[in-house]
Amino acid sequence: MNATTEAPPLPPDTQLPAVDRLVAEASAAAKTWAGTPRADRAQALSGVAAALDGAVEELLPIAMTETRLAEGRLRGELRRTTFQLRLFAEALRDGSYLEVRIDHADPDWPMGAPRPDLRRILVPLGPVVVFAASNFPFAFSVAGGDVASALAAGCSVLLKVHPGHPRLSAATGEVVTEALVDAGAPAGLFTLLYGEEAGRAALRAPRVKAGAFTGSVRGGRALFDLASSRPEPIPFFGELGSLNPVFVTRSAATARGGAVAEEFIASFTLGAGQFCTKPGVLLAPVGSPLTDTLAGSALPEPAPLLNERITDGHRQVRDRLAGHPAVTVLAAGSDESVTAADGVGSAAPAPTVLRTTVTALLQDLDELFSECFGPTVLVVEYDDEAELLAVADAIDGQLTATVVAETDDAIVPELVARLVPKAGRLLWNQWPTGVSVTEAQQHGGPYPATTASATTSVGTAAISRFLRPVAFQGFPEQWLPDELRDASPTAPPRRVDGHWQL
Amino acid sequence: MNATTEAPPLPPDTQLPAVDRLVAEASAAAKTWAGTPRADRAQALSGVAAALDGAVEELLPIAMTETRLAEGRLRGELRRTTFQLRLFAEALRDGSYLEVRIDHADPDWPMGAPRPDLRRILVPLGPVVVFAASNFPFAFSVAGGDVASALAAGCSVLLKVHPGHPRLSAATGEVVTEALVDAGAPAGLFTLLYGEEAGRAALRAPRVKAGAFTGSVRGGRALFDLASSRPEPIPFFGELGSLNPVFVTRSAATARGGAVAEEFIASFTLGAGQFCTKPGVLLAPVGSPLTDTLAGSALPEPAPLLNERITDGHRQVRDRLAGHPAVTVLAAGSDESVTAADGVGSAAPAPTVLRTTVTALLQDLDELFSECFGPTVLVVEYDDEAELLAVADAIDGQLTATVVAETDDAIVPELVARLVPKAGRLLWNQWPTGVSVTEAQQHGGPYPATTASATTSVGTAAISRFLRPVAFQGFPEQWLPDELRDASPTAPPRRVDGHWQL
Repeated sequence: MNATTEAPPLPPDTQLPAVDRLVAEASAAAKTWAGTPRADRAQALSGVAAALDGAVEELLPIAMTETRLAEGRLRGELRRTTFQLRLFAEALRDGSYLEVRIDHADPDWPMGAPRPDLRRILVPLGPVVVFAASNFPFAFSVAGGDVASALAAGCSVLLKVHPGHPRLSAATGEVVTEALVDAGAPAGLFTLLYGEEAGRAALRAPRVKAGAFTGSVRGGRALFDLASSRPEPIPFFGELGSLNPVFVTRSAATARGGAVAEEFIASFTLGAGQFCTKPGVLLAPVGSPLTDTLAGSALPEPAPLLNERITDGHRQVRDRLAGHPAVTVLAAGSDESVTAADGVGSAAPAPTVLRTTVTALLQDLDELFSECFGPTVLVVEYDDEAELLAVADAIDGQLTATVVAETDDAIVPELVARLVPKAGRLLWNQWPTGVSVTEAQQHGGPYPATTASATTSVGTAAISRFLRPVAFQGFPEQWLPDELRDASPTAPPRRVDGHWQL
Repeated sequence: MNATTEAPPLPPDTQLPAVDRLVAEASAAAKTWAGTPRADRAQALSGVAAALDGAVEELLPIAMTETRLAEGRLRGELRRTTFQLRLFAEALRDGSYLEVRIDHADPDWPMGAPRPDLRRILVPLGPVVVFAASNFPFAFSVAGGDVASALAAGCSVLLKVHPGHPRLSAATGEVVTEALVDAGAPAGLFTLLYGEEAGRAALRAPRVKAGAFTGSVRGGRALFDLASSRPEPIPFFGELGSLNPVFVTRSAATARGGAVAEEFIASFTLGAGQFCTKPGVLLAPVGSPLTDTLAGSALPEPAPLLNERITDGHRQVRDRLAGHPAVTVLAAGSDESVTAADGVGSAAPAPTVLRTTVTALLQDLDELFSECFGPTVLVVEYDDEAELLAVADAIDGQLTATVVAETDDAIVPELVARLVPKAGRLLWNQWPTGVSVTEAQQHGGPYPATTASATTSVGTAAISRFLRPVAFQGFPEQWLPDELRDASPTAPPRRVDGHWQL
């Protein structure tokens, strides 16, 4: 079978009159969906998960062809995707995410005036535009975390398809839509949009109430600016760029530099370095077993990147870094020409480890501390461990920062204190790739890592992005949402008169 | 005593070099304050409250002179202000606001990969610029809710003084600063800035991480645009404008229209109508006891507004509305000339009730549905109760929306469903002025009511605006924040492995 000749035609760009109609339908659907009981929304998400699990053999070949990613990786990613949908279904059933607070009337409230009966709950924002990512064709795309959390919140979703995998998007979209329809969800709840202009038009539409995005700093900032400059500004949850620096103390580099080097290589070459959490910069002491091992190690074989645009981009940034007067090559193989799953010949870049010094880095931070999407990293050597603190202070916002240290290293508390303002997730002797989907996960950091550092795009807290609070004052029980009634069979964990009630 | 001649000189505008220095000091102070135990921060806030209580007789005369507000009103407002500081201190001691989540490592996590040990907590953003409001010289000014919640969160504060009460601001600032110093807070934690340009410069400063504002749509939007267009955009929590519409059903107007009219008058003339929650528009059936009572009622005596700028602004909007071809005057006294507390003669505007129809309102919504800051309101009459739904759909975001109805009115569920997307607080047979400070309060709504509808500026949830999450992965207990340790004497209520632990 030749995938290239048998592929269905590419879906055409969504035209602007159609965008208007789809937004109107999404707006109507959002009203119905917001009023759908949590248990039913949870059921629908579980249904989508089951449908995707059932469609794996249909979707995988399309994904492999369009993304050049390996089967094992894609199979694992789809498993993560359906797990995520089920985890949001669980969060819906639990209801803690609604942050319900009930204050009964209190004539003796010490403010100086009686306290009225006030009951607060989070409600969905309305239609959301989600811009899919290129590098996670399942987990951050049509059925990914942004979509799952928006649907869980009770919002409708207009999904702007990533041009890197349009056929997979169409096929996944069909599975999702059919499962939602089977679960009784309203028509128009979930729609695909094709084309940049359609995505931008949807983000500008007055009825759309939020945007979510994973991609480049440049693209994400342009969309953030669009969302912020609307007559009615809307929140835009963009995950843009991050270098995820790793800070290795002298004692750790000395005690286990070889092992750290091997783990670093495994992390930065995972998925050919095409992860937002790839550790792109590693700081290590001059002349330790760590750099020796990196210099002498057999790096993994070259693998093709997602597409030619990304391949070209990686080569340009790598060559620019390697050509910097303060940078040398510590380890690198040779690029190879491979035949990718789409039958097209492609340059597969060799994993590359570049080297510079902290002094050089701080002198030319803008140039040297810049993301290289793909399997290239920069090792930055220091003479004095205190230079780690200077780097922590100098860098901008990150998704993650990693500390590789011995437990009693004296620098740890100060280093952690300086990294907390800079990153959304701090790791200790672990590696940032492979972001676990859990309640306590935080995937988001200060700009430019994200445009909304108070939020996460992975983990159950991602649902909060698509909600806003409403307080009901003095309402009779019968007109209150179920979760706010005193005697409520669906009461989630809530605060009542200042005390938790589980 | 003649207040005008004895007043100290006006504080001069803060010059730009000084702004840079104050921001740097605020940044250093923020680091210390963020690391100060919650109990100590709570103690400091309580100390500020006690110091303000002790300074009431010193502050009140200055407030009366600068704001023309009555002594009773100001005394109550100061009581509210110190209560608020103490409530945030309580929230700090409780610690629920940290939203701690702990997921222990789980080798069998069904995602397809083991779950690492992940522990999530909220951390302070860093220095915050707060722009004080004119209409609450205590509760939304130097020691007001934005300042209290930012300090509680662990942020430092640069307070841009409102030009309407600079001497009161300076005096209050001294009390606050001295109390913070007495409590051992770091120098530079709290600073006053004078002048528009100083406020804008601080908002642009790279080290400043958030802004908060209460004021006009125009001024707030300009600052929001500034915050959003920085190289590193920062969140801007602006509370701008709201008409707080009141929807009266036919049966309620018939059954108790007279009483509703009296309550409405009391609410819209409270503080001479200078509240962000003033009910500015009331929808009622044509020809009911409600409008009859309004037409025949003795409206309260004219009172001077905060200052001449606000007096002029009120007159202009009132006259424009009254001059609209579809508007008639339902009830109004005569403006008076009074001698205000500052010894200056001022025009005190008469409370004014204007009248139009829903048909006219919907035909010229931009013109007729516009905020008139001061004691002027618009009564909008309907023929058919269903017109209430059309108005709910047509209006933009509001801080509050009020339903005045009988419990079994058929229209209630649909009306509430349409108001939830439009307002942050819904009231039932109560009035929106007099915002209670509680856990469940929500003071914030969709734009233009606020620039961040997912947040509140009143109530303990206001603290969340100045925090962002950080997850610690795989950290040894000794390097974790206290609240994240398994055995923690300061553990707040938290989620552990998906279960609440109180």
